Formats: sequence, C-alpha cells, structure tokens
Amino acid sequence: MPVSNPFLSLVGAGPGDPEMITLKAVNTIHRADVILYDALVNESLLGHARPGAIIRFVGKRYGCHALSQQEINHLIVEMAMAHGHVVRLKGGDPFVFGRAVEEITAARDHGIGVEVIPGISSAIAVPASQFIPLTCRGMSESFWVTTGTTRSGDISDDIALAARSTATVVILMAMSKLPEIMELFAAHGKQNTPVAIIQDGTTAQQKMVIGTVADIAWRATAEGMSNPAIIVVGEVVNLHALLTATAVQQLNNRLVHEERQTRL
Amino acid sequence: MPVSNPFLSLVGAGPGDPEMITLKAVNTIHRADVILYDALVNESLLGHARPGAIIRFVGKRYGCHALSQQEINHLIVEMAMAHGHVVRLKGGDPFVFGRAVEEITAARDHGIGVEVIPGISSAIAVPASQFIPLTCRGMSESFWVTTGTTRSGDISDDIALAARSTATVVILMAMSKLPEIMELFAAHGKQNTPVAIIQDGTTAQQKMVIGTVADIAWRATAEGMSNPAIIVVGEVVNLHALLTATAVQQLNNRLVHEERQTRL
Repeated sequence: MPVSNPFLSLVGAGPGDPEMITLKAVNTIHRADVILYDALVNESLLGHARPGAIIRFVGKRYGCHALSQQEINHLIVEMAMAHGHVVRLKGGDPFVFGRAVEEITAARDHGIGVEVIPGISSAIAVPASQFIPLTCRGMSESFWVTTGTTRSGDISDDIALAARSTATVVILMAMSKLPEIMELFAAHGKQNTPVAIIQDGTTAQQKMVIGTVADIAWRATAEGMSNPAIIVVGEVVNLHALLTATAVQQLNNRLVHEERQTRL
Repeated sequence: MPVSNPFLSLVGAGPGDPEMITLKAVNTIHRADVILYDALVNESLLGHARPGAIIRFVGKRYGCHALSQQEINHLIVEMAMAHGHVVRLKGGDPFVFGRAVEEITAARDHGIGVEVIPGISSAIAVPASQFIPLTCRGMSESFWVTTGTTRSGDISDDIALAARSTATVVILMAMSKLPEIMELFAAHGKQNTPVAIIQDGTTAQQKMVIGTVADIAWRATAEGMSNPAIIVVGEVVNLHALLTATAVQQLNNRLVHEERQTRL
C-alpha cells in the first residue's frame, strides 16, 4: 500500500572527508526510510542512518553504472511511494553536476515533495585542502567551475573564454581531456600559468601534482594521476607553497621524481 | 606567558541557516579557546563554543568595519599567542572571497599553525534554496562566481567574457553595480536571459525577485532588494518555476506588484 507522504531529499555528502557533511544532511539521513547513494559518497556516512533504513548503492564505479539515470529515477519514485522518505545521497553538492534536475522532475511528476540540502562541493574544498584558495584579492577575483566538455563530449567553447579571463578555472572529471584543454590555455598565452591536479581530495589517499599549463599533462602521466581528480588553473596555485610549510617537502618530491625519471 | 602551541582554524560558517555547517566546523568551534566571527555568521553557531571560550565580533556591519583587516590579522596573532587555538569563523567558505590569505600569512609569519575548514558557499547554496541548480545537462555545463568588480571597484573585463559564455554566472556583493553589469550582458545579446536576485538566502528573511537581464534592475529597485544578495544570470533560473510548485504563487506576486505600481 502506498504511503501518504512520499518525500525526496537530495542531500550533498561533501567531498570525501566524512566530517565535511552538514548537520542538516546528517539529521536528514537519520530520518530517512530509504537511502540511495552514489559511488563518490564516503560509505561511513551510512552510519548516520537509523536502524532498519533501506540502503542501496546506485552509483557508477570504474565507469560501470550500477543503474542508469532512468532506472535511478524510477527507483526513487517506487521507493518514496512504498516507504515514504527517500534520501538521495550524492557526492559533493547535488546541484553542481549532480543530475538533480532529472530526479526532481521524476519525483514531482508523481506528486512527491522534494527538498535540496547542499553539500560541500569538491570544486572548492579539494583545492582548499591543499591551501589553494579559489580567489585572492589582487590575484584572482573570480572562479569558473566546468567539466571542460559539452554533453556530446567535445571540448566546450567556453574553455577558450575561460583561458582569456583572469578567473581561477576549476575543471572536474576531465583527466582524459587534459592535454587538449591545456593546449587551449597555451594558445591563449598561458603556458606558464600554474596548474594543480588533486586526486582523491580530502581523503587519506589524497595526491597532488603541481606544474604549469605547458608541462602538467606529462607530469600527471608520470605520476599516474587519474579520476576522481580536480584540475585548478590559475596564479592562486602558487599560494600552496606560500601558505604551507612544504617548500622543503616539494624539493624532496622533485628530487625523488628526478631520480625516478633517471632510472626509467 | 605565551602558549606553546598557537593554532589558527579558518572555519566556514555556511550561508546563514545554522544547520548548514559541517560536523568538522562544529567540532572545531567546540575545541576553540578563542572565536573571532564575522557579520555574516549566524550568531546561534556561537552556541557550539565551549564554556569559557573568548568570543569576539570582528566583522563589518552596514559598511562599518568593527576592525580593519590589519587589526584582525594582529588580533589573530595576539589571541593565538596568548590563548592557543583561535577559530576565525567566516560566513560561507573561507577561501571564496574570504580574505583568508592575509590572515594565514600573518599567522604563518609568527610560526602559528593553520588549517582551513571549508563551508557551504552561499554562491551554491542560496540558488539551491530556490531550486536553481548552477548546472543542468544540456542547459548550462559550467558556472562562474564573481563579484563583478576588480580590487579598484571597476567592473571587471571578465564580465564581458562571462556574458559571451554558456556559463551560469553568479555575482556576489554587486547590488550597487547591478545596472552596469546587466548592460554588459545586454550588449552581448542576453537581454532575455533570466536573472534571479536572492537576498538573505537560506534564512527566514529570504526574499527573491526574478526577471530578465533587461528588466531585473528596476524590478530589484521596486522590491527594495539590497545586500547581502546573490545575483544569478542564466537559463537555469527558469528551473525555479519548473522544479517548484510556485507558478501560481508567482502569478499572485506579480498581481500584487502591479497593483502596487498602479497605486504609486
């Protein structure tokens, strides 16, 4: 028998660190009858669920979808109708590249109430974890967050505009297009602009490579960097060394790296 | 006598709703010996402080600075040296227009350890609270967050690039420059692009006006909109009506508004 008050909460789980979730998100997870969670969600967050809640993984892992977007939409509706309060737990923020609109529309079409609970976006928190602020007075007065590609998978024309701007550019889910994107920045005179790539940000596995537009692609290959990773292009990347005490550590890393290169 | 382990935590307080703060931020506030907080911080968050913690307001209010940035930097160093763990509690996220770099540098120069704890940025959460996602597949593949002005107060050249892009543009702290900024968007053929202005987002006083690039400036004036406000320019603004059940409510608002205009 269907419940009388089906409801959907789209909840941001944050960037990876299980403490980087909001009180509102924790309270909502605790009230949920059903939790449908994505691959980029830290599974320890499921510990906030009440005993007896239905918990199901619906994400992508290694490019392999557990469920298609349409199947997820159907499952949300089915679960809300059958059990009441569904929490759709998504990595980062639900409204930043989160496919939230499809899920909300599906719920609304069935008369299901909806709320959105923001999460800490990895676009901001992952650079922050390495002391890279997205803005800094007199250095960068804005930031642009993009995947670098359009729906069809082509490089977005916006990348050329971003390359001409003074904005810090944050590029998500774009490791496979890294060389092409860097070529566009180089074509706009930004060969020497610093670039950081941060993999598995805010987790214990976190790993970073710093270079310039001209050399970051080979550095990333040499270090075996892969998704999930955040690419940051802009002068603010230089603040990492200024704001941390890692100048010596970086030197050591370079020596180790050069030694490895020599051995290859 | 100075303490042996002075430490500074830059903590994001989130956009206004006191539940939109992270577990990590709450735990850090609870451990602090000193809390220095800004004007845009919800004061109920100070309830997370331990008994006996020193709590001081250092923000701006109505354009009037309680302390200058340099005075805040000095106070951070002084308090950390005298009392130990200082939490610098800032509205939104510390690394998004947060003047964090000055404060970290001041602390580092005195050998004070520093950490940054991200917060929910109002740039993302305030539009979300009105069901306006910053990205939506096939509609907007990126977003650009800016104050619209440079350090000197002039309109940034980047606004012209943003106006030419397909990005959702989020403009913070820019109500006084609204007409000039909208003229730049109009000059790039975006007269009919929808615009939302949201004041006091995620709080009980929240207020929104929706219009287009061509008419939002007079609508905002008519409704008495002022800072703190977020301006969102892009097709995603149309999703507000689609994702909420407010079509009827909007019609009512317009009728009330038109009645008021007739009376003026």
